[in-house]
Amino acid sequence: LVSKLPNVGTTIFTQMSQLALETGAINLSQGFPDFDGPQALREAVARHVMEGRNQYSPMTGLPILRQQVAAKIARSYGVQRDADSEITITPGATEAIFCAVQALIRPGDEAIVLDPCYDSYEPSVELAGGRCVHVPLALPDFAVDWQRLSDAISPRTRLIFLNSPHNPSGALLTRADLDKLAELIRGRDIHVISDEVYEHLIYDGARHASVLAHDELYQRAFVVSSFGKTYHVTGWKTGYVVAPPALTAELRKIHQYVNFCGVTPLQFALADFMAAHPEHVEELPAFYQAKRDLFCDLLAGSRFTFTRAPGTYFQLADYSAIRPDLDDVAMAEWLTREHGVAAIPVSVFYQSAPEDMRLVRFCFAKREETLRQAAEKLCAV
Amino acid sequence: LVSKLPNVGTTIFTQMSQLALETGAINLSQGFPDFDGPQALREAVARHVMEGRNQYSPMTGLPILRQQVAAKIARSYGVQRDADSEITITPGATEAIFCAVQALIRPGDEAIVLDPCYDSYEPSVELAGGRCVHVPLALPDFAVDWQRLSDAISPRTRLIFLNSPHNPSGALLTRADLDKLAELIRGRDIHVISDEVYEHLIYDGARHASVLAHDELYQRAFVVSSFGKTYHVTGWKTGYVVAPPALTAELRKIHQYVNFCGVTPLQFALADFMAAHPEHVEELPAFYQAKRDLFCDLLAGSRFTFTRAPGTYFQLADYSAIRPDLDDVAMAEWLTREHGVAAIPVSVFYQSAPEDMRLVRFCFAKREETLRQAAEKLCAV
Ligand SMILES: CSCCC(=O)C(=O)O
Ligand SMILES: CSCCC(=O)C(=O)O
Repeated sequence: LVSKLPNVGTTIFTQMSQLALETGAINLSQGFPDFDGPQALREAVARHVMEGRNQYSPMTGLPILRQQVAAKIARSYGVQRDADSEITITPGATEAIFCAVQALIRPGDEAIVLDPCYDSYEPSVELAGGRCVHVPLALPDFAVDWQRLSDAISPRTRLIFLNSPHNPSGALLTRADLDKLAELIRGRDIHVISDEVYEHLIYDGARHASVLAHDELYQRAFVVSSFGKTYHVTGWKTGYVVAPPALTAELRKIHQYVNFCGVTPLQFALADFMAAHPEHVEELPAFYQAKRDLFCDLLAGSRFTFTRAPGTYFQLADYSAIRPDLDDVAMAEWLTREHGVAAIPVSVFYQSAPEDMRLVRFCFAKREETLRQAAEKLCAV
Repeated sequence: LVSKLPNVGTTIFTQMSQLALETGAINLSQGFPDFDGPQALREAVARHVMEGRNQYSPMTGLPILRQQVAAKIARSYGVQRDADSEITITPGATEAIFCAVQALIRPGDEAIVLDPCYDSYEPSVELAGGRCVHVPLALPDFAVDWQRLSDAISPRTRLIFLNSPHNPSGALLTRADLDKLAELIRGRDIHVISDEVYEHLIYDGARHASVLAHDELYQRAFVVSSFGKTYHVTGWKTGYVVAPPALTAELRKIHQYVNFCGVTPLQFALADFMAAHPEHVEELPAFYQAKRDLFCDLLAGSRFTFTRAPGTYFQLADYSAIRPDLDDVAMAEWLTREHGVAAIPVSVFYQSAPEDMRLVRFCFAKREETLRQAAEKLCAV
């Protein structure tokens, strides 16, 4: 069998989590909490499973969950998105992205990705017969370089991926960025997939500039989010995608044959919890900022250098002062094996990373105790 | 946006379940039980969710669940399939089929489907840029017509779909069928996706001829099954796919970007339950045969004609003696609206169904009371 994805191996997240397990290192690599989702949410799953909500749900997702998502969007961004025609529940944000790409990309089409970017974008485009054009974000702030993005657009461009808050850097797009993008694609047959899975993880009083709230851009967009990230249950693999009705209709055609429907008792539980605890998302920024600040305060005593992440639960750290001789893949492995802390190298998020880049990514979605232990080890490096 | 799947609407399963809901009809259309999964299985989910098994599981599936699948395969079919390199847990059989198709099909390739067939096969092939060649099964028994299948093979053929026990007819492939297929594709670059989601639902003492137990065919095959069907929890959307290591490696490359991983607490619970209750699958044939026989015994008093399904939880019924003037789509709707029993038309499983076909499909995965009520209504037709 000739491979459809010859360049693809096991994802770095799987590799590093496995190495952490093998070596007993503290796992700050793959992005997931080492604490649990809210008790009331988990109790709701137990209740629904015991009460018999275990058969297929609608292909589009449970109506009561879609309504809760619409209500959350209205509260968070002040816009009305229709639960029936614009919101679809998916088995994770990854599947939402995959289906959106399949809806948009045909053989020969191009998609623009802003490097560093999440590793599923490119294979999704390739499986649809398209190819990715990589535009690096401008360092050191991982800001969009509008000239380069504009230069990268060709008559074949069908899709631009956005990701804010940005994995791995934590950078945020501003409303002005969205305006620029809207202007850039105006009158062109170009759509947007906006990966906003960290939408509620934003610090220092900043506000998320969601594509959901940008009326012009939204008309061309699939906006993807994740219950797993927002409710600390990454293993539930439940997400959603919001798009105008015509785009949603095409996405659903594909989703119904990729997966058919999401997991029923989890959807009931999420709907219950969201209805009872709208404050959960409002409390998230403070909750995670405390973790970021604890970790960064402790790391200030190390030889890593960094600026605090504006969003996400990831903190980049520069190790030039420690082992400039190691590339970041070797550094991540060395940190794991020799110092007992697993991290993610940043170059793997690039098609071709700057040669002198010396960055690793730490996930700070961890208990205080874990962060303290990890920081202690990192300070000893 | 120009549609990638212009011919696709909402699946018939969604349509009929919705119509049943709207009209208050007894829903014997979409295939799912109206009783619950085993209590111990559901309790295990509740326990794992409460005990904190809520973060990402490995992309390939939980090792303990893959091991239980391997053990079940060994008990059921007397063959050893390796938990690490041959078994992958997926978010439902549909996703497994989709990923296997993406691994095999390139633009211009052909896949052969045996009509009537499940509705996800063709869109999966089309999204990969291939096209389906439809070969009808021979009536009245829905047996493979080997001459027609052989004639349908071209130099572009890359894939043949098998489905046994067969949805919607319940027909079974025999070991001799598998031998013939192995001979037919020998020396050719053709693979097989064997949809065996009803593998444990086989009646009258028959045995399932699994591709898993056919050493030659298995070398070219992806064999797909479903925990949802076997454990009465279709809404958990958890399945698995078994394939030789090289095929599994390609499937996983795709699965990791389509979905990444299955739902963690469900996988833990299934592993627990399978370990504690290996008898569950052995008891399934008698459990469902009793339902089939109850339903068919009661339906004997009606003007429907039928032969009992050899497998699956579906029963076909011919309505020629009742409303020969109606095509089956109209008949399914008429039964739902006028007689309060929702069914699935069979022609929708065909590219072009025989004009005189007058068959509808009833799902008998229902409580005795439901089956009695439905049969009473059907006898009044
Ligand atoms: C789906 S595994 C990767 C989790 C994640 O989003 C990350 O670590 O970047
Ligand atoms: C995924 S919905 C369809 C269920 C089913 O397998 C059927 O009814 O045939």
